[in-house]
Amino acid sequence: DGQVPTKAIKDPFTTDPVPDERLHILTAKPCNAESPGEALSEFCTPNETFYVRNHMWVPSVEEQEHNLVIELCDGTEKTYSMSDLRNRFKQHKVTATLQCAGNRRKDMTKHARQTNGLQWTVGAISTAEWEGVKLRDVLADTGVNLNNPSPDDKHAQFLGLEAYGASIPLCKAIDPSGDVLLALKMNGDTLPREHGFPLRVIVPGNVAARSVKWLRKVVISDEESTTQWQRRDYKSFGPNDTRPDWDAAKSIQEMPVTSAITSILNGFAVAEGTEKGLNVEGYAYSGGGREIVRVDVSTDGGKTWDQAELLDDKAMGTKAWCWKRWRYALGESAEGKTTLMVKATDEAYNTQPQSYSSIYNARGNLATAWHSVDIKSLDKGTD
Amino acid sequence: DGQVPTKAIKDPFTTDPVPDERLHILTAKPCNAESPGEALSEFCTPNETFYVRNHMWVPSVEEQEHNLVIELCDGTEKTYSMSDLRNRFKQHKVTATLQCAGNRRKDMTKHARQTNGLQWTVGAISTAEWEGVKLRDVLADTGVNLNNPSPDDKHAQFLGLEAYGASIPLCKAIDPSGDVLLALKMNGDTLPREHGFPLRVIVPGNVAARSVKWLRKVVISDEESTTQWQRRDYKSFGPNDTRPDWDAAKSIQEMPVTSAITSILNGFAVAEGTEKGLNVEGYAYSGGGREIVRVDVSTDGGKTWDQAELLDDKAMGTKAWCWKRWRYALGESAEGKTTLMVKATDEAYNTQPQSYSSIYNARGNLATAWHSVDIKSLDKGTD
Ligand SMILES: [Mo]
Ligand SMILES: [Mo]
Repeated sequence: DGQVPTKAIKDPFTTDPVPDERLHILTAKPCNAESPGEALSEFCTPNETFYVRNHMWVPSVEEQEHNLVIELCDGTEKTYSMSDLRNRFKQHKVTATLQCAGNRRKDMTKHARQTNGLQWTVGAISTAEWEGVKLRDVLADTGVNLNNPSPDDKHAQFLGLEAYGASIPLCKAIDPSGDVLLALKMNGDTLPREHGFPLRVIVPGNVAARSVKWLRKVVISDEESTTQWQRRDYKSFGPNDTRPDWDAAKSIQEMPVTSAITSILNGFAVAEGTEKGLNVEGYAYSGGGREIVRVDVSTDGGKTWDQAELLDDKAMGTKAWCWKRWRYALGESAEGKTTLMVKATDEAYNTQPQSYSSIYNARGNLATAWHSVDIKSLDKGTD
Repeated sequence: DGQVPTKAIKDPFTTDPVPDERLHILTAKPCNAESPGEALSEFCTPNETFYVRNHMWVPSVEEQEHNLVIELCDGTEKTYSMSDLRNRFKQHKVTATLQCAGNRRKDMTKHARQTNGLQWTVGAISTAEWEGVKLRDVLADTGVNLNNPSPDDKHAQFLGLEAYGASIPLCKAIDPSGDVLLALKMNGDTLPREHGFPLRVIVPGNVAARSVKWLRKVVISDEESTTQWQRRDYKSFGPNDTRPDWDAAKSIQEMPVTSAITSILNGFAVAEGTEKGLNVEGYAYSGGGREIVRVDVSTDGGKTWDQAELLDDKAMGTKAWCWKRWRYALGESAEGKTTLMVKATDEAYNTQPQSYSSIYNARGNLATAWHSVDIKSLDKGTD
């Protein structure tokens, strides 16, 4: 009838890229999808199977039309085109793991009780080599005094093209060892649209929610971002806290130490007696650039532990921003055992909590308890 | 008979200061003594009851005779008198908690199994306001390029007058936010002899074993201190690790999150039914300047938790280098309950392990499991 179909115009998701079919889709609009086990077995996750965590639609933008605005406390504003960023500043590469605050939330739900949020298993985490310019270099160009910032310069707020926003403390943004990047490339390629094309801020060591995609503006401020993602969603409370004091709680930035088994899923079936020949793999990760120093594996429910082999992957960056992959070959002692359990320790010797009940929070954030996988033995007999 | 008593001459401990009688002495030679409960209830521990952890005797030295030598990788050496440090550099105050790697080791022994080392309870930790010069300022004066150190400058080794030595990564030593101090004063007074007079390096956020007393030399090196305290004693291994690979293990620097009840001891007796009126106090602490964001208390063995009040103490320094004191008033629900349990969470949302068995190590380091205290009910009846 010649009319424009209203629904198609109003739905901002229609131009979202089609997600790779190997991803495990949790929601389509917005797109939220886990990395599959095979992607988690590589040190750098391929762009196609890097987990996707979007709060809204994927903006459509041409690189030539996109600018980054930086606004300082005194009102100074400076605008940078993508070619300014590419040509006027030194380019850096940083390898960094990004992890959603809700990674492994499904485990918390299963082992404790109901949580509000996407029910991720172990795949809301991925690693890439990011390439771009250091945020501190651009801030210095705009006029921030890196050695002696004004006392009002407390937070760097990030605004995306859709409406998403978040912030980090300015000290992280300008720390020479902080490696905060304005990334134009991911694993050597142009940033894919669903990962923030044409510009994403990468905050290594912090919860991925601070690595804002489709970055259009950075505001230096005396207060945190006022969005719900800064002031509400990405916080955590005590197991009993039914009336949380949002304002008093610190927003999640650096993440606690965690680990997971990725090579086999819960309920993995092996022929009876062959569990002792199983090779198990997974990752361990800690926030703040703290390196993983040990991964312990148990086949007897945590009574005794053995150590997994840590893989010696090479990363770019000043601190340990990446997950540590690990490998463990089950031996004779695993015969007849049906549960594999893993926990990691980082260089500050922090370790994971044993139970989900002790860290339960209604939002299901930071589900970092010991990870376990049950193996199902296929009886060779008549059953 | 006119002979000099050989024993007195050869015993280097004879000139050790007499420890305050309120301290709980574990060993006399060397002096190792815990802070008593009443000292742990103050934010800044009085000098007299600050815990003492000495590996050898207390050197006797006159301030005018003492010098600090700084040696760089290229062989450059520069010598500073105490009056140089006092007059040529800006003086700074930093409030910092020091904690022994073995604090609460006795708990690990009790709840897991035998450990080698001083059997500290909850008092191998104290807090003071330290005053002196920033190590980075002195290193810059000696010739270290703070903004672009040579690739060989990896560690700052500290040597004491007796024989003790340890090191920290150079990046911590020169970090403007690291607050590493060459301290001449403690809580406003001259550094007491047993705490390092006339000069102690204070490394906020790191295990106290790196805050070397009676500091005579700093060596910038491409390797860690070669002492046993750097390469052996202050490391940690898996619960099963009976043949530890010392060289592969990272030495302890930043400490994991911990907490303790200090106002009542294990076995504290209350008249039956009055446990519900008890006020409990304690501390929580995390390494690396990570702030304590929450302290959870349980009276039912960890099934449910409530939050303690965190005291708002004021400290000097760029990060949260101090313990957080907490307070909790037991209510009606505590009636008849006999065990108090505490665990803390820091700003990276790391939390304490539940069991000692999961973090057991033969050296008994980093005994940070949930702390519990049993209350004994005094039956008002005939028993
Ligand atoms: Mo997230
Ligand atoms: Mo210690």
